[in-house]
Amino acid sequence: MEFRFREGEEVVDLPDGTDAGVYFIGRIRTPWSDRKDCPRQGREDGPKCRIELDARWASALHGVADYTWLDVLYWLDKGRRDLVIQNPKSDGKLFGTFALRSPQRPNPIGLSRVRLERVEGTTLVVRGLDCLDGTPLIDIKPNRCEFTPKAPPKPGV
Amino acid sequence: MEFRFREGEEVVDLPDGTDAGVYFIGRIRTPWSDRKDCPRQGREDGPKCRIELDARWASALHGVADYTWLDVLYWLDKGRRDLVIQNPKSDGKLFGTFALRSPQRPNPIGLSRVRLERVEGTTLVVRGLDCLDGTPLIDIKPNRCEFTPKAPPKPGV
Repeated sequence: MEFRFREGEEVVDLPDGTDAGVYFIGRIRTPWSDRKDCPRQGREDGPKCRIELDARWASALHGVADYTWLDVLYWLDKGRRDLVIQNPKSDGKLFGTFALRSPQRPNPIGLSRVRLERVEGTTLVVRGLDCLDGTPLIDIKPNRCEFTPKAPPKPGV
Repeated sequence: MEFRFREGEEVVDLPDGTDAGVYFIGRIRTPWSDRKDCPRQGREDGPKCRIELDARWASALHGVADYTWLDVLYWLDKGRRDLVIQNPKSDGKLFGTFALRSPQRPNPIGLSRVRLERVEGTTLVVRGLDCLDGTPLIDIKPNRCEFTPKAPPKPGV
């Protein structure tokens, strides 16, 4: 993986090991096969993309079709995990990683709110993604704006 | 970890191994030390909570104070990862895991949009969390509603 630093960018030493493990539960199909072509952010009027869930998890889609908006989490492992200061425009302006939605971050988890067009078996057809074709899927949740908890309220608020 | 199934709940076999590793980059401090007391969803007028980032990542906070709304990702490993059909109310109504924001999911990643009150060194004081005290932090991003990419647009939209 070649990586070219821009002026002012900073890295730190990574921890010796990781603390928890992620399952890739499917793949995301998008029109973009080169990082240079991916949009910087998904748009709800962007092109249709497909979220292909592995058959193992099929039952977990029950009820998903009731939502228009979903939060999709995916794994962006093409970048550096040790970059803490970034220079997104190569113009000398520096930002901390947590002030950016950049794919270079300690845990490279991408998050998009997508518009669900339809469910076809274990595939969701959506708009609003911004990632490379083949990106590993890690989670799907109803977007919080539309979601009301299905269990009774609790005192903790 | 004891787990009591409710009527109709279903599990699947988990894959043999995980595919990627997550670093715990800090801890979240909340008023809730028992799962029974945690709210079902964070609220922007909920109690103040503290996101304590490990010193290693301190520089990555540069610029975070400019945002009011952040997306916070955390790791909820107290539940089952193999539950695909859930009965949240114990009333026989069944939902697929991806139609819920339940902590029981293949990759137990919690996601809250929080309101940033202030930054104190490597600690963020926020409102809007819903997790147990001590929950591992895995990512902080500007919420997409407020965030405009810092790099030039690209053709892929």
